[in-house]
Amino acid sequence: MILTVTLNIALDVTYRVPALRPHTTHRVTDVWERPGGKGLNVARVLTALGHEVTVTGFAGGATGRIVRERLTGVTDALVPVSGATRRTLAVVDASSGDTTQLNEPGPLITPAEWSAFLKVYGELVAGADAVALCGSLPPGVPVGAYAGLVRTARAADVPVLLDTSGEALRRGVAARPDVIKPNSDELAELTGSHEPLRATQDARRRGAQSVVASLGPEGLIAATPEGRWRAAPPARIHGNPTGAGDSVSAGLLSALVEGRPWPDRLARAVALAAATVRSEVAGEFDRTVYEELLGRITVTGDATAA
Amino acid sequence: MILTVTLNIALDVTYRVPALRPHTTHRVTDVWERPGGKGLNVARVLTALGHEVTVTGFAGGATGRIVRERLTGVTDALVPVSGATRRTLAVVDASSGDTTQLNEPGPLITPAEWSAFLKVYGELVAGADAVALCGSLPPGVPVGAYAGLVRTARAADVPVLLDTSGEALRRGVAARPDVIKPNSDELAELTGSHEPLRATQDARRRGAQSVVASLGPEGLIAATPEGRWRAAPPARIHGNPTGAGDSVSAGLLSALVEGRPWPDRLARAVALAAATVRSEVAGEFDRTVYEELLGRITVTGDATAA
Repeated sequence: MILTVTLNIALDVTYRVPALRPHTTHRVTDVWERPGGKGLNVARVLTALGHEVTVTGFAGGATGRIVRERLTGVTDALVPVSGATRRTLAVVDASSGDTTQLNEPGPLITPAEWSAFLKVYGELVAGADAVALCGSLPPGVPVGAYAGLVRTARAADVPVLLDTSGEALRRGVAARPDVIKPNSDELAELTGSHEPLRATQDARRRGAQSVVASLGPEGLIAATPEGRWRAAPPARIHGNPTGAGDSVSAGLLSALVEGRPWPDRLARAVALAAATVRSEVAGEFDRTVYEELLGRITVTGDATAA
Repeated sequence: MILTVTLNIALDVTYRVPALRPHTTHRVTDVWERPGGKGLNVARVLTALGHEVTVTGFAGGATGRIVRERLTGVTDALVPVSGATRRTLAVVDASSGDTTQLNEPGPLITPAEWSAFLKVYGELVAGADAVALCGSLPPGVPVGAYAGLVRTARAADVPVLLDTSGEALRRGVAARPDVIKPNSDELAELTGSHEPLRATQDARRRGAQSVVASLGPEGLIAATPEGRWRAAPPARIHGNPTGAGDSVSAGLLSALVEGRPWPDRLARAVALAAATVRSEVAGEFDRTVYEELLGRITVTGDATAA
């Protein structure tokens, strides 16, 4: 079982309007809703790849209830909270294709709710093959939260991937997670360097055992205890990048628990990310594109230079 | 018991953002939610005035569940439907105070659901002192729906107020409702006349027994079988007009079931509408303002000229 943690889950709502004009009234022509939050996205991709997944984090209120009803194919171990799960609203302007995003703040987590989560997490980690810690921290959760969650996983000898940003990432990295997967902005914020090769090395010195950095449409670079690699798709992929980072996490973790070596993990991650960018539905991956690309990812590097 | 009918209820959601900029991402600073739809607003005011109220219409999905949980002080006789109750979203730009409105379309009502409603409505009307039919028709409900509901109430000798617009109003008026309360746009659309005195008379000829037309901040004019009146607040009231029309309906109906004559009904309606415009919370009425204004409404007209 792979455990994904999403402390700040959301109900992602999408509205389509003919054209968005501030200070007027709009008739929404289409409405879509689905569970959101990085850890839930990772779980969806892992499930599609045939893995058994348990999701945890917090859920509350009517929106939390909708999210839980819509979770299919995963084991729901979300911890109930008194506040209401946030919504994120994407308003798509059909005339321009542009999106306006409105994100609710999320519920305040009480100390008692945080303690309840830590207990559930400790029990779940004991039965997990790998853990993904994903996304931002909701109000009320201590900023050093991910460091504690990383240490719990490491104490149980369970590989742990951390995907967050800012101070939560900085503190989490110090607890020596097995993998971090920052994008270039997150990596630069962590290390102060905008040069990816140098920054990945620096992030390892700060504590991350392996660093897989996204180069956007050019693929990934990885600095690991087993070596350094670069993985690239056969051509630049155009489309909607929503969810591509979560597909990278799912690719890395699924191949890790299957015992695959780093080049295979990176190839899978790049193929899944590209198949997500190419999908017609934001955040989903196109299986045909994935299978077609998987054998065509170029992985270069060497297994001793790390 | 007063029965209010809201065929197209909503969950009214309000977001405050620092400034709305299309095609960017916003952090929503405040979120409010409450049951919405004209008939539910009328019910809230009637309850605050001490009347026993039953609400009916349709509710479905997670949003319908939230609306039902939030209905307090009224008897809930909403008919369950398979589609989800719509949301309306008001995005308030804190920098300008302007509001951008995004309205979901609402669920499609099936013929079986409409039949189920007609049965419930027939039973409720039999025990009602008055009926308010409020708002737009959801998809699937026949455009002549209000005419049928008016006839059912009239057959049971229960006074019926109709507050809708467009073709639904035109067809409903022909069934001879006791009261309609159009605003100036609705009245002009119904009669083709922009001259309120003439248009109210014309609306009576089309079938409405009494017509109470809103003149906005200048109050109301009424053409009834008992006479014609004009009711005005002591001064123009400034504020947010949201819900003022629903307060007019509540004022008219509450005074009607209490056996008050037309001038009293109109004074109450104008005072409630003004207290709604002046309230800090959109759609609520300020009780202190209401009680202070009630004795200061000027009602002019005569009881024989109708």
